[in-house]
Amino acid sequence: MGNNNNDFVKEITNIDEDFAQWYTDIVIKAELADYTDTKGCIAIRPYGYAIWENIQNYVDSKFKETGVKNTYFPVLIPESLLQKEKDHVEGFAPEVAWVTEAGGEKLDEKLCIRPTSETIISTMYSKWLNSWRDLPFVYNQWCNVLRWEKETRPFLRSREFIWQEGHTVHETAEEAKARTLQMLDVYADVVEKFLAIPVVKGIKTETEKFSGAEETYTIETLMHDGKALQTATSHYFGQNFSKPFEIKFQNREGKEEYAYQTSWGCTTRLIGAIIMAHGDNRGLKLPPKVAPIQAVIVPVAMHKEGVKERAIQLFEQLKKNYRMELDDRDQYSPGYKFNDWEMRGVPVRIEMGPRDIEANKCVVVRRDTAEKIEVSLDEIETKLTDILDDIQTNMYNMVKENTERRTTIARNLEEFQKNINENQGFIKAMWCGNAKCEEKIKELTAAKSRCIPEEQEKVSDVCVCCGEPANTMVIWGRQY
Amino acid sequence: MGNNNNDFVKEITNIDEDFAQWYTDIVIKAELADYTDTKGCIAIRPYGYAIWENIQNYVDSKFKETGVKNTYFPVLIPESLLQKEKDHVEGFAPEVAWVTEAGGEKLDEKLCIRPTSETIISTMYSKWLNSWRDLPFVYNQWCNVLRWEKETRPFLRSREFIWQEGHTVHETAEEAKARTLQMLDVYADVVEKFLAIPVVKGIKTETEKFSGAEETYTIETLMHDGKALQTATSHYFGQNFSKPFEIKFQNREGKEEYAYQTSWGCTTRLIGAIIMAHGDNRGLKLPPKVAPIQAVIVPVAMHKEGVKERAIQLFEQLKKNYRMELDDRDQYSPGYKFNDWEMRGVPVRIEMGPRDIEANKCVVVRRDTAEKIEVSLDEIETKLTDILDDIQTNMYNMVKENTERRTTIARNLEEFQKNINENQGFIKAMWCGNAKCEEKIKELTAAKSRCIPEEQEKVSDVCVCCGEPANTMVIWGRQY
Repeated sequence: MGNNNNDFVKEITNIDEDFAQWYTDIVIKAELADYTDTKGCIAIRPYGYAIWENIQNYVDSKFKETGVKNTYFPVLIPESLLQKEKDHVEGFAPEVAWVTEAGGEKLDEKLCIRPTSETIISTMYSKWLNSWRDLPFVYNQWCNVLRWEKETRPFLRSREFIWQEGHTVHETAEEAKARTLQMLDVYADVVEKFLAIPVVKGIKTETEKFSGAEETYTIETLMHDGKALQTATSHYFGQNFSKPFEIKFQNREGKEEYAYQTSWGCTTRLIGAIIMAHGDNRGLKLPPKVAPIQAVIVPVAMHKEGVKERAIQLFEQLKKNYRMELDDRDQYSPGYKFNDWEMRGVPVRIEMGPRDIEANKCVVVRRDTAEKIEVSLDEIETKLTDILDDIQTNMYNMVKENTERRTTIARNLEEFQKNINENQGFIKAMWCGNAKCEEKIKELTAAKSRCIPEEQEKVSDVCVCCGEPANTMVIWGRQY
Repeated sequence: MGNNNNDFVKEITNIDEDFAQWYTDIVIKAELADYTDTKGCIAIRPYGYAIWENIQNYVDSKFKETGVKNTYFPVLIPESLLQKEKDHVEGFAPEVAWVTEAGGEKLDEKLCIRPTSETIISTMYSKWLNSWRDLPFVYNQWCNVLRWEKETRPFLRSREFIWQEGHTVHETAEEAKARTLQMLDVYADVVEKFLAIPVVKGIKTETEKFSGAEETYTIETLMHDGKALQTATSHYFGQNFSKPFEIKFQNREGKEEYAYQTSWGCTTRLIGAIIMAHGDNRGLKLPPKVAPIQAVIVPVAMHKEGVKERAIQLFEQLKKNYRMELDDRDQYSPGYKFNDWEMRGVPVRIEMGPRDIEANKCVVVRRDTAEKIEVSLDEIETKLTDILDDIQTNMYNMVKENTERRTTIARNLEEFQKNINENQGFIKAMWCGNAKCEEKIKELTAAKSRCIPEEQEKVSDVCVCCGEPANTMVIWGRQY
């Protein structure tokens, strides 16, 4: 029951035939988001937004444990401010949207909608900072940003997206660097422990780093189809913004000094990561920690005496400790409901019919394994915790298995091309450090350097591209 | 100590001499917000934003108790959508900001930054709604909006502000009207119980209602200087948007029908309400439920043996149940710190010096009354709850007293003018229902109709303006 072909499955494209279409089907059918009349921008529907709220609450609490405080800065940035940091404006100016008219008049200076807020925030930091005693500033904002992408996909690359951007100011380079890495660890924890997706932590190459950063650190993940997804980044700016924006302070020796900065962010793209890392042919598959509904009760033979009542009773009992749904819709069959909730990725389904109730039990069906477990109604409240924990762990392991299976070593370009064409996945290969080799690999294989991973491994003695001696192992992959 | 004139008080304009300047001083000195390079837009600093987070969490939890689900819709709205509802576009078009260029190109159709989202949300509702079984939609979003105001003031009237906007769709007019009033009650609860400000609930006159609404309900409050502030509104739309936007459904009889809608919102203006209702010549005064810091511990003679250690111990103990701060800055005197925290509106200060510690006690100083209370260190953890509760109640009563003192009755224009000039405040006066009388009163007195209050009172038999028979009591006032 619930494992046969049916209307739901027919409506969803096969995951291994057309992953891109499968993804879009999930987003629309599971009612996570929808396309709007504003081209390239989506509406996030209640079920999708509830996932984001769970992520946001978790991330925000982890931030606050490290001393982060929230703030809010203007959505509009005057053109002159955006211009102040050379690399930054080169990177972002081509993809911003400009407000040129407002309140019925043409503006003297046009204003861009923030693509990111380093510039406007730096002008305020310059105003607020006087002495080393004021430092550090460890501020963050949850907000919308806009980047005028040519090709868009819901959650993964939307013109408007919601994110958090942290911006910090420090007395010393060391402290700023430590904060950059601390936040990278927070993101790794979020993606691994909460989203149940294994990560590779590393530093971006010069070519791939953020416009204006000294160093960009990244959290890389691998999706079901073997393509890579960057899920969060953390940047060390050094004094790149503090100098043009005059963020100065009196140091402990009474001398004026430019401050050291960082920024770090993650976005609603994390919802895309969950869909693409965990989903299968039955639809969405949500890790219990993220799921807006952790378990759904589906009464069977609801018209029989006492069934609905007992289901309501169980629902009231369980909702004190779990995020629950009771599906008592009378226009649908149990089979329809089973498929519906599987498609929506609910981790656990609890079936209960007259005979179950007579035997004081229910049937728990796991979304991750389709396993059916008979559980006494006296024990369900405590056992559910173990089952949900086990699902969370198992889902992590399933993605880990896919990531490891698709991670290969390449010692030359031939191996590189063979591996990426067969497997997609992460390619571990040595690199000489020359941007030209990176460029050539991209041209030949459509794979980019994902990062220089924290955990190095000497997979060969020479650069995978030019054959010159190389000491740096880079992870490469085709990306979203 | 802490009640004498000093640098802090000198920096803040006297509240009764220049209330507007006093307000600005508080916003800046208490580090709630600051002006930015984006004209008319503010940056909300960590202390100000922490107040907003407390409000947001409370409001959001109250919403969810009534079944509200959060969503997110695009910040940009195509011009053609804004045009669809006649009254709505007339009301909002003059004050929107337009994006005309993006991604390096002129746009074919310009896009406005949402001043409110009825139009873009209605297009999606039209797409999502099929049957009465889909209803109600009870959705909300927390987001930024932009209205190109000519004169701006931090929190009260900013070009960009943060708010929530709820948008619901219902099967029947009755259900939609009930939701409109339900949300009005939620707002009244938030403002009275959480912000400690008494409210008047009522309906707006035709002239003052929202562009596109059938009925607009409002929560009106009175500030320290006697001017009125609208703190939240709830609108019943009837089918005003469902018709142009084709929000139709199959009703229970199988017939196609236009749905009934509502919308309701509150904004960061609530922070302005807190400042202006409660503040005094010593600075900000925060109700304990809203305060980011509920109590601050200021050790006295911190260099003396054991003082700092005991303060840290108490801080660690209290922070489990209260939002606490320990002020162990060694560059400032206790007197400086007392004034600093008073200016920032912290409800309770806990002073402890060597002699207090020896006697196993501390001194609790209330921000609302300046009262000093000796409390045993063994009892402080439990007593603090009572003290904070009492401050919350007392602060409500203090504003209530001001509101009642400044609420007067006027039976003719002479009385009206005399009262408003002497008292500002709420004027209770009868109204014939003619918009011309409203207009005339506004011209003569600069007071607008605030609302037709829920609680009616027949203060005279005739219209305060024209002298014709009148059955409706209106509350009037000058507004922010």
